[in-house]
Amino acid sequence: MIENNAAYLQTLGQQAKQASYALAGLTGQQKQALLSAIAGSLTKNSATILAANRKDVVAARDNGLNDAMIDRLLLDESRLQGVISDIDNVINLVDPVGTELESQVLDNGLRLSRRRVPLGVIGVIYEARPNVTVDIAVLALKTGNAVILRGGKETLQSNLALSEAIRAAVVEQGLPADSVQLIQSPDRTLVSGLLKLDQFVDMIVPRGGQNLQRLCAEQATIPVILGGIGICHLYADKDADIAKSIEVIANAKVQRPTVCNALDTVLVHESIADQLLPQLYTHLAASGVSFYGCQQAQTIAEKQGVAISIATEETYGQEWLSLTLGIKVVRDIATAIDHIRAYSSGHSEGILTDNIHASAHFVNAVDSAAVYVNASTRFTDGGQFGLGAEVAVSTQKLHARGPMGLEALTTYKWIGVGEYTARS
Amino acid sequence: MIENNAAYLQTLGQQAKQASYALAGLTGQQKQALLSAIAGSLTKNSATILAANRKDVVAARDNGLNDAMIDRLLLDESRLQGVISDIDNVINLVDPVGTELESQVLDNGLRLSRRRVPLGVIGVIYEARPNVTVDIAVLALKTGNAVILRGGKETLQSNLALSEAIRAAVVEQGLPADSVQLIQSPDRTLVSGLLKLDQFVDMIVPRGGQNLQRLCAEQATIPVILGGIGICHLYADKDADIAKSIEVIANAKVQRPTVCNALDTVLVHESIADQLLPQLYTHLAASGVSFYGCQQAQTIAEKQGVAISIATEETYGQEWLSLTLGIKVVRDIATAIDHIRAYSSGHSEGILTDNIHASAHFVNAVDSAAVYVNASTRFTDGGQFGLGAEVAVSTQKLHARGPMGLEALTTYKWIGVGEYTARS
Repeated sequence: MIENNAAYLQTLGQQAKQASYALAGLTGQQKQALLSAIAGSLTKNSATILAANRKDVVAARDNGLNDAMIDRLLLDESRLQGVISDIDNVINLVDPVGTELESQVLDNGLRLSRRRVPLGVIGVIYEARPNVTVDIAVLALKTGNAVILRGGKETLQSNLALSEAIRAAVVEQGLPADSVQLIQSPDRTLVSGLLKLDQFVDMIVPRGGQNLQRLCAEQATIPVILGGIGICHLYADKDADIAKSIEVIANAKVQRPTVCNALDTVLVHESIADQLLPQLYTHLAASGVSFYGCQQAQTIAEKQGVAISIATEETYGQEWLSLTLGIKVVRDIATAIDHIRAYSSGHSEGILTDNIHASAHFVNAVDSAAVYVNASTRFTDGGQFGLGAEVAVSTQKLHARGPMGLEALTTYKWIGVGEYTARS
Repeated sequence: MIENNAAYLQTLGQQAKQASYALAGLTGQQKQALLSAIAGSLTKNSATILAANRKDVVAARDNGLNDAMIDRLLLDESRLQGVISDIDNVINLVDPVGTELESQVLDNGLRLSRRRVPLGVIGVIYEARPNVTVDIAVLALKTGNAVILRGGKETLQSNLALSEAIRAAVVEQGLPADSVQLIQSPDRTLVSGLLKLDQFVDMIVPRGGQNLQRLCAEQATIPVILGGIGICHLYADKDADIAKSIEVIANAKVQRPTVCNALDTVLVHESIADQLLPQLYTHLAASGVSFYGCQQAQTIAEKQGVAISIATEETYGQEWLSLTLGIKVVRDIATAIDHIRAYSSGHSEGILTDNIHASAHFVNAVDSAAVYVNASTRFTDGGQFGLGAEVAVSTQKLHARGPMGLEALTTYKWIGVGEYTARS
């Protein structure tokens, strides 16, 4: 138990800020050595880590968590091995810190450049899966940042064991243990306190559902990167290739329905609805998809004997994360865009069309992190985009948008070098 | 009077978002024509604008505002002419919107690019000077953004007249008047309401003092760009050229003491304090500077008969905005950096030294928007940095740091173009 939350968080913040100064000065080689040491320490301590995780699993069973949730928090030998070998990928990524983004010499001789530097201290609030503890710590350290972690209470024992193994490696490399700190109490008021630690923490990344995102937006005095909620749309235009469109829609819905870039609603131009929808129903119903649709979509479904519920404002505004799909027949592209503007979470949308004007208009008019032409929404992913790693998927517009790679953990400073130059 | 603040703000937000869709689709030429029309409309309506400003000035006198404050809100023929001719400069700036930041073709053939796009709707909260109404509206429109303006109550009549002239030009160009909206009531609860309008507003820029910045950080659910507060430091290292250093320090303090990049505290290595400080006192006292200093700085000052007050934690933490300077003698560069970390607002700091190792260490260790070697802090300015325009000076680390030009009013979207490409 923590006696005084405010004092505890102040100390955490101060320690993190102090550690960040040491990390900001590391060379790429030193950071690579640090990450290797972390991989080594996790391997060495794997028995302890797995034992801690078993405690979390037992507690979760006692608390009546369902099998899917228990599976999410479970670490076994092979999962832990996967987490550790992912560190090798991060070691091999190009370190963005220190790059000069641009430079110029002013007329008075001042050499001015913008240099990429670590953000400083990053706070990450996450749920369930304990691998996030390692993933985030490693990405933060790779970019020279200190990190304060706040995991879910269901994985507290696992997170403690993982963070202790990481801290041991940090110390072994001659760096401050507090480069990586885990909030050690499940007390929820600590989250609110963390969100107001703007004196020490430079960015908050919440990795969790709508409620966590909203809490952060409302309470934080620190810049927050909102994201990870995907209410994703595909619009099949009047000039869409119907057979190919069905393949893309099916891919976006079925390939991995539980993730944020999976399709939630398909919008179909009324002139192709009679052709496209019957085939789509047959194809998707065979994959176990269930449907919510507008009146017109329902009429077509019923002719085929496919079950469909009537869509509402509420269902259109829902991120399904399951084999469920909303369907709406629209009068034209403008109506499709209006629907997207009303219901999208700004994650991923796409148009299916052979028409160059429709595609250009859609790309310009739809204001989401990722906008596709004739492609599945499932591509919005750090790995697919070649970022090497993914911190989160941002659905807000400042600093980072869409999949966030290492660069999103950095900022820049302006550096001006003169010859005792004064402003005239 | 506004009957229902919440409903009023909702309407404002909806209208701005709707207008932003129209603005996002404009070509560079259309935006240039729009800005020319605004300049024309301000010229045409200048008698009305100046009459409105006279009402503000009379009210300000009646309310006992001092001459400096009245001067800040005053518009006369020549100042208004200056504001209008500044629009020409913005017209001629390169429009960053539409640029592809990078592009790649994934192995599956998906063409992926990042395209710079307008942010959408920008909210700006500012005080006193009515020229900000025009400056910000023009910069927002140049980058295809809608804007909601909230000026100070002292300039409400001026701002109303200015914004009406701008809106007339917007309409004349066939665009929604609500591309530019001014909050028409001085009610302060409207500021709190604006800060929570995250459904419609993409970024808040507060241009004002510490209290406004803090209010925004605490209340906003929209990303806020904090800035404009400069507690700036120069550190004269043991290897500094003393005569040249005094020139730079004097420039940073005296050239324009009322702005955020003016020097607030000079830190002097103890090994050169006995040489540098007497000359510095003489030089600056002649310019009317008064001093707060540490014990050692005071001892040296008194030998010279220069008046100096003892500095405290509070005075070191103050942005002077006047001919006042804090002075501290430090044991070494590490102590100087510690002082800066404790008291800086993250705006502008510099080292004065001939030593390459000291300069490199200082640049790495000081975490401010602008870090100088042998140069005045006065350079931190959009105009000096060649940005062409300055929206604000950011002292936070996300999205934009230091002087913010047009790019800071944009974000990017990822665009993926396939051939009905599915993820495998």
